[in-house]
Amino acid sequence: MRKKQPVLLGIVGDSATGKTTISAGIRDILGADRVITICADDYHKYNRVERKKYNISALHPDCNFIDILEQHLCLLRAGKPILKPVYNHSTGDFDRPEYIEPKDFIIVEGLLCFYTKKLREKFDVKVYLDPEEDLRLAWKLKRDTSRRGYTKEQVMESLKRRAPISKRYIRPQRQFADIVVSFYRPKGHEEETGSNLNVTLVLRPTLRHPDFSAFLDPRPDIRERCLSISLGRDEGLPVDFLNIKGIITPMTAETLMDLIWSHLPDGIDPWDVEIGQYYEGKEKKISYPLAITQLLTTYHLLNVHLNNE
Amino acid sequence: MRKKQPVLLGIVGDSATGKTTISAGIRDILGADRVITICADDYHKYNRVERKKYNISALHPDCNFIDILEQHLCLLRAGKPILKPVYNHSTGDFDRPEYIEPKDFIIVEGLLCFYTKKLREKFDVKVYLDPEEDLRLAWKLKRDTSRRGYTKEQVMESLKRRAPISKRYIRPQRQFADIVVSFYRPKGHEEETGSNLNVTLVLRPTLRHPDFSAFLDPRPDIRERCLSISLGRDEGLPVDFLNIKGIITPMTAETLMDLIWSHLPDGIDPWDVEIGQYYEGKEKKISYPLAITQLLTTYHLLNVHLNNE
Repeated sequence: MRKKQPVLLGIVGDSATGKTTISAGIRDILGADRVITICADDYHKYNRVERKKYNISALHPDCNFIDILEQHLCLLRAGKPILKPVYNHSTGDFDRPEYIEPKDFIIVEGLLCFYTKKLREKFDVKVYLDPEEDLRLAWKLKRDTSRRGYTKEQVMESLKRRAPISKRYIRPQRQFADIVVSFYRPKGHEEETGSNLNVTLVLRPTLRHPDFSAFLDPRPDIRERCLSISLGRDEGLPVDFLNIKGIITPMTAETLMDLIWSHLPDGIDPWDVEIGQYYEGKEKKISYPLAITQLLTTYHLLNVHLNNE
Repeated sequence: MRKKQPVLLGIVGDSATGKTTISAGIRDILGADRVITICADDYHKYNRVERKKYNISALHPDCNFIDILEQHLCLLRAGKPILKPVYNHSTGDFDRPEYIEPKDFIIVEGLLCFYTKKLREKFDVKVYLDPEEDLRLAWKLKRDTSRRGYTKEQVMESLKRRAPISKRYIRPQRQFADIVVSFYRPKGHEEETGSNLNVTLVLRPTLRHPDFSAFLDPRPDIRERCLSISLGRDEGLPVDFLNIKGIITPMTAETLMDLIWSHLPDGIDPWDVEIGQYYEGKEKKISYPLAITQLLTTYHLLNVHLNNE
């Protein structure tokens, strides 16, 4: 049997918006052996020393081989292998390239994956991560001062320096996503960065999302507090807002996940893996809003896969 | 005006057969700004340490990303840029990849460039270098003990180890060339490695070569000693053999070169550059057989370029 065309998922968001956390869960649901994850940072044009010398941010389109990324996505989509560049975040320099053969699902996470029309056309599903800005700041501080070895001052300085570039090149990509994921802190819990975060998913009608109305109608009194769907406008256009609170009960969350899953004929058993996982230091935790976000995205990937030739 | 499709020249030959010397002269005639030279060694799959560990020779097709080379030639031919891997012969490891945009002429030199049908189809002109084996040995010893820092024993050992792989994978590519270039030493001059070498060019009718008959007929008594063309068979098929002796007079050589050139309408002035150059240590020398080989090959490249859309 001829291999099906690979399904491509693009996950775009500024630095420390949770790209890797989201994509890792999706990969676990689909099965690591069926998924290739590509970090678009690998397509940087300059290493750390050169960026400093030329005074150019890694976020800037001119600092990235956008045309080569387009070409590589095109090749992978056509079932062809690529020799992918490798940027090493530890050394700030390039390692030897890596030979990659496409698999059923290809997840591409990065800062500029929806920057050109050619790039956007490559993706079957497009997700943009847009957490509350103060929450992103907390996430970035936590990560960069622990895992990447920067001081708090360095992180703040970098954020400040990057702000105009981010605004100009990264943020405008939000409009191209099928799903916009906005985590935010519950009122009065400004210290929260984990399980109790709420999420709003902007579900654009560029994809056919599962019909949640049947599930959400019957007991609006209870569920509306933690789970709601409402029609509205985003960037001027009609969308659905799916809102999930961090304090949702496991039962309600799992019923909703079952509902999402029930739209798919068969295949993967969603309960093989614990989705919605993330780490606080070395401690593994679960977030239901995260789990539902990952599952809904996976649902779309599987749908495309089923319908692909 | 739309850019013309790039013209691709493939130069294949075993180690130390003169690939770089030939290609450097062709690049000089065409003008360095119009030429990209790619060394197919860049497409090695393993670095030096890994090749030792896996006990695999760099000459073996399995030791090279043949599929990626095919892909990259295909992209360049289509006028698209590539991110080319870079193998560093000094370190025996891979450097960061290099962004290459196609130019009018692309010269690809390597050990296995005619190994697959897909590769062969990419080239407009195919040259195979097939010097006398003892001459190649002398060239290899000279180069590898001086510029690459090996001992004589190491070079001999390497040649012995590579012989069966060379016979199996490299030599059979000879049959696919449009021009086979065989330098050889004049009888009784076994020490000769330079200007006095003779060359036989096998001119296969897969390309339309210039008509040398008018030039070669008039004074056969003098010229036949240093310059002859004769019909014959090579690998069972009809070819022309063009034989040029190293002791050819500059005047005869230059008259022949003018003849080759006269077949092209205009453009490049062949006397802008000293072709046929090579180095003995740091000393620059000229070989007329080399010059004519380079010029004839260039003639074909320019012809393809003129006729390309």
